[in-house]
Amino acid sequence: MGYDRAAVRRVLDDALARGRVALTAPEARRLCDAYGIPTAEEAVAAGAEEAVELARSFGGPVALKVVSPDILHKTDAGCVLVGIEGDEEVRRGYRTVLANAHANVDDPVISGVLVQRVVTGHEVIIGATTDPTFGKVVAFGLGGVLVEALGDVTFRLAPVSPPQARSMLDDIAAAEVLRGARGGAAVDADALADVLRRVSDLVHDFPRIRELDLNPVFATAGGACAADVRVVLADAEPVEPVRHSREEIRTAMRRLMDPRGIAVIGASNEDGKIGNSVLRNLLDGGFTGRIHPVNPKADRVMGIPAHRSVTEVPGEVDVAVFAVPAEHVPAALEECGRKGVAAAVLIPSGFAETGERALQDEVVDIARRHRIRLLGPNIYGYYYTPRKLCATFCTPYDVRGEVALTSQSGGIGMAILGFSRTTRMGVSAIVGLGNKSDVDEDDLLTFFEEDDNTRCVAMHLEDLKDGRAFVEAARRITREKPVVVLKAGRTASGARAAGSHTGALAGDDRVYDDVLRQAGVVRAPGLEDLLEYARGLPVLPTPRGENVVIITGAGGSGVLLSDACVANGLRLMDIPPDLDAEFRRHIPPFGAAGNPIDITGGEPPATYEATIRLGLRDPRVHALVLGYWHTIVTPPAVFAELTVRAVEEARAAGDDKPVVVSLAGDTEVEKAAEVLYEHGIVAHPYTTEKPVAVLGAKYRWARAAGLLG
Amino acid sequence: MGYDRAAVRRVLDDALARGRVALTAPEARRLCDAYGIPTAEEAVAAGAEEAVELARSFGGPVALKVVSPDILHKTDAGCVLVGIEGDEEVRRGYRTVLANAHANVDDPVISGVLVQRVVTGHEVIIGATTDPTFGKVVAFGLGGVLVEALGDVTFRLAPVSPPQARSMLDDIAAAEVLRGARGGAAVDADALADVLRRVSDLVHDFPRIRELDLNPVFATAGGACAADVRVVLADAEPVEPVRHSREEIRTAMRRLMDPRGIAVIGASNEDGKIGNSVLRNLLDGGFTGRIHPVNPKADRVMGIPAHRSVTEVPGEVDVAVFAVPAEHVPAALEECGRKGVAAAVLIPSGFAETGERALQDEVVDIARRHRIRLLGPNIYGYYYTPRKLCATFCTPYDVRGEVALTSQSGGIGMAILGFSRTTRMGVSAIVGLGNKSDVDEDDLLTFFEEDDNTRCVAMHLEDLKDGRAFVEAARRITREKPVVVLKAGRTASGARAAGSHTGALAGDDRVYDDVLRQAGVVRAPGLEDLLEYARGLPVLPTPRGENVVIITGAGGSGVLLSDACVANGLRLMDIPPDLDAEFRRHIPPFGAAGNPIDITGGEPPATYEATIRLGLRDPRVHALVLGYWHTIVTPPAVFAELTVRAVEEARAAGDDKPVVVSLAGDTEVEKAAEVLYEHGIVAHPYTTEKPVAVLGAKYRWARAAGLLG
Repeated sequence: MGYDRAAVRRVLDDALARGRVALTAPEARRLCDAYGIPTAEEAVAAGAEEAVELARSFGGPVALKVVSPDILHKTDAGCVLVGIEGDEEVRRGYRTVLANAHANVDDPVISGVLVQRVVTGHEVIIGATTDPTFGKVVAFGLGGVLVEALGDVTFRLAPVSPPQARSMLDDIAAAEVLRGARGGAAVDADALADVLRRVSDLVHDFPRIRELDLNPVFATAGGACAADVRVVLADAEPVEPVRHSREEIRTAMRRLMDPRGIAVIGASNEDGKIGNSVLRNLLDGGFTGRIHPVNPKADRVMGIPAHRSVTEVPGEVDVAVFAVPAEHVPAALEECGRKGVAAAVLIPSGFAETGERALQDEVVDIARRHRIRLLGPNIYGYYYTPRKLCATFCTPYDVRGEVALTSQSGGIGMAILGFSRTTRMGVSAIVGLGNKSDVDEDDLLTFFEEDDNTRCVAMHLEDLKDGRAFVEAARRITREKPVVVLKAGRTASGARAAGSHTGALAGDDRVYDDVLRQAGVVRAPGLEDLLEYARGLPVLPTPRGENVVIITGAGGSGVLLSDACVANGLRLMDIPPDLDAEFRRHIPPFGAAGNPIDITGGEPPATYEATIRLGLRDPRVHALVLGYWHTIVTPPAVFAELTVRAVEEARAAGDDKPVVVSLAGDTEVEKAAEVLYEHGIVAHPYTTEKPVAVLGAKYRWARAAGLLG
Repeated sequence: MGYDRAAVRRVLDDALARGRVALTAPEARRLCDAYGIPTAEEAVAAGAEEAVELARSFGGPVALKVVSPDILHKTDAGCVLVGIEGDEEVRRGYRTVLANAHANVDDPVISGVLVQRVVTGHEVIIGATTDPTFGKVVAFGLGGVLVEALGDVTFRLAPVSPPQARSMLDDIAAAEVLRGARGGAAVDADALADVLRRVSDLVHDFPRIRELDLNPVFATAGGACAADVRVVLADAEPVEPVRHSREEIRTAMRRLMDPRGIAVIGASNEDGKIGNSVLRNLLDGGFTGRIHPVNPKADRVMGIPAHRSVTEVPGEVDVAVFAVPAEHVPAALEECGRKGVAAAVLIPSGFAETGERALQDEVVDIARRHRIRLLGPNIYGYYYTPRKLCATFCTPYDVRGEVALTSQSGGIGMAILGFSRTTRMGVSAIVGLGNKSDVDEDDLLTFFEEDDNTRCVAMHLEDLKDGRAFVEAARRITREKPVVVLKAGRTASGARAAGSHTGALAGDDRVYDDVLRQAGVVRAPGLEDLLEYARGLPVLPTPRGENVVIITGAGGSGVLLSDACVANGLRLMDIPPDLDAEFRRHIPPFGAAGNPIDITGGEPPATYEATIRLGLRDPRVHALVLGYWHTIVTPPAVFAELTVRAVEEARAAGDDKPVVVSLAGDTEVEKAAEVLYEHGIVAHPYTTEKPVAVLGAKYRWARAAGLLG
């Protein structure tokens, strides 16, 4: 790209050598020049007459800005004047901004007054900041006070590719303004994207740049030009997190999830003890690998020969499940290290979450030394149903299926278990992550990516230890399998201190939202959504296109289902005339074809069945949303049966389309919903929103994975 | 106010006499002058030299705009130039706009070029339009292309009071821009509010004004001034809907809901007939008034003496339930009229919904002639549990409670019934409204307002026949009782043709949203929310203040509950130091006081109970959100029992606060949630969102009703 990295290095080194982290305007401009980021013509005047000379040489109106490392928010301090024209006005303005600087800041260091040619166009903001989770991110939004009032801004991980940069322009709510709304000229989108890319390269190449604002950038049909640049450096070089290779992760995770032998450290015959529950659940769950109780005081636990130490266990031990008090973990973990255990599952609490950070650090050190991967501490354990593995103090769960669920919090894990049991959700794994002292979401994603037993992953998380590693793993797996994330703490008011506009805008969960979406992740707005998406996504086939058709027996449901489709970003198909005519053949004359297709309330089963079959058969239709209305003519059980039959026959004929159902009726519809769900049809009683939200989640994933063409 | 109504009348009459509905700029300006709406200095020039003269006399830059009734979107047609300064520029500009007018519009009528002083400040839009449901509404938003791109605009019914007008400024998302964000000067809010009020008075006084745009209005610290005015008149005078007096409505509705005698027109001995179901349900439901089967061919129906016609029934008949085919309704309704029946419940379909509009009109005419109120047609009927009245073809429902539910659609009515039955929701009434040929939501609100059996109303509706009447009724009842509305069709893309910015912005459900909120109505985002609010609002006591406290056994739930509180507009209390210290006495040292109060997962029942009691007792705490985590130490049933005991004892001591609970755990939590709900504690398993959403709805109502002080 012809970037002048040496020039940037010189500016940064020089500022840091002087103990400054806030660059002056001329320094910031030198960074821009070095990376080809266009800025307005400008120069620093040391006196009023020099300012007048400069203004004359630029021609037209100018802006005057005090240059001082001590004044960050220059506008607020009255140190900026714009639209100054003519010798006398420039002279007077020069004195005014200096006087304001002295009036507002005690004894500021001032290196002159910047005289800048006034440029015009649409005001936008382009910036970069250092996110605590994801590192360097670049931001784009409309400029001026509006961007802050409305928060209409979008983020991408730096560095951005040219198409990523270009996509940012379309991602803000006010995008049409830049495209030339109401007869205005469109701005030069390529020029703006080019600035975004250069900014992202700059902060990527120089991690020491903590925050950078181009605010405003004036965008016109002919180009883009930054009128003001602000750069803040970090106090120290950022630290890179510890990372394992993908192959290392896979090897360790395979041994964790599919172990040949499991030791239970602290296995106990005493009812009520965790070491008792864990062993019983392993046994009751039907795990077929070897199980080794470890207990220094017992010869047998639950009838199985026990060992005094894990080191005495014969044969390979892949996993050691810890059910001993926290203070006994380090010694037992050392023994696991000597035994060559691959993974330690630390159920006990009493670590970082209770303030015992030092104990947790000690345990992590021991594990790292012995190359043991740690799950936990402070967890309920984990389930992996393909191996009938229930290494947990909760009761076994055996409904095998294709969704893997993980939770950072034990409470949420228990909710996952209860919901799974009551809905008989088919599950491949449930994993507690707790304090995430070591194994975290990206390790699990790396395993689930290659795990043929898992077709969908649903994760509850409160933070990510390593946002970049998560994004990398998520980008890979989401090409094949949907990943749903419930990110808790999303409305926490941004507590981060920020020295820039971009930094301030980056709070409030926006970076998470943008980055997760770009990684192809489907974000669940709440716990119930996480659970319903987890239940529904694996059973629904992947749609092959955007054409959604609603068929409803209740006009009222049809309207609500349409609302739900729009709210979930689904596109109601424009029914082609020939298909419309076919639908009309089956429905009463006062029914409404179009979309929703309202077959009207009093219709017999044959009308439901004929229209559903039509929707399943026509290749232009890609997904069906059904609204059932309980009547004597078509009772719930009859509707469920005919729908299952039609869908299964279509599947057999190769027409495997997602079908979701909303059932309105008396309590019998609950049983009908269960029957439908058991046959891979997402169905809910008393709600028009839930089934459509699940379909919407499937579409969000399929779109991001590029499966809809 | 000193409005010059005569001047307005003259302008309108003149334009209409000439067959024009679009006013010219000078005409529009005369309207503004007559109502004291400030506009920029301007005058129409008939030639280039006159324009130059005018520009000189105003001083500074001017705008030039072609005056023509044939060109509505002048900017798009190149007929507007702004920032023109100096004789030569004005001369050239004059020619340019005229040339563009001729280039873009075939043979336009042009009455000159408007020369207008350029004013500056924050651009806002103030406008008025005629909503099909609510009539005249006034709009406020930020001006320029942004208002349309972002749709950041708010509406009020015209006329607005000064406080209502003032509140509009705070109601847009970008409100802080006008308050002087980032050191900018605040605009003169009173001046803007004054313009809003005058505009609303103008359109209220002259209903013939269909749409009015002041766009932009320039707002500064010193005032507000409209730079452009556009006015469009209606093709005809608007028609006022038929209205009944409040006393007439009450009398009729009392006879409908609490009838002494009911006739069933078409009562039948034949199983499967609607006339059979209705009669059986009336009997099985236990209605204690007189029931009169009407059937010309039977002596007795279900053992009760039948009559050949309603006219032959002895004694008073308040309600006639129709279970005959649509075509037999007119004749039977005539007989009801002769008998003095107060209300006819028209279950049959086959009217407007199947295209039989004429038949429906005929029935409405007969009813109006006889002063019979009509419920329906095309409905399932209605329930009123305090009288054990089940006049419906669905099965009886007998769980008496305090919420009244209504639905426009039969399918949604069936979902209400099924949900009620499965959750054992306490209900006072369920009413089907169907085609709303007569009785509609405002009639029902008028009844429920005075009905001591009803403490909350939940309505599904697709449209309002008379928006103003609804708002009037809603404003009255919501002072005492919450009203929840599910407005279906909310995302329907606005199909309305609009000749103005305000009109275009008024589509897409925004007017409904703003007007319902101002009427004190709580809007439910979906069907499931409607049902859950209906179930929860009547059992929760009204909070006395905004201080919400979260107490949780699971830190993970605490974070999600906080998210939900923020999402639902609830304010987490800043716990005062003394109360914080009290909480800390009960929780482990590593637990977190503050808010959420995280008592940590392993705690015994005593910790839950002590902290809950503390929250209930302290008068500074106004509502509790509890997060339960299923453990062996505190099982679900124990938690439910202790919570019920604490809440009931607090109630007995006069501390009646809303308490909602989220339960995370294995399936046993489902039973615990039921027990809690039965005792007036809104509780849900596997979700942190639902209980908080119900509390949020209660707060939204209480705030709007002014009950929080």
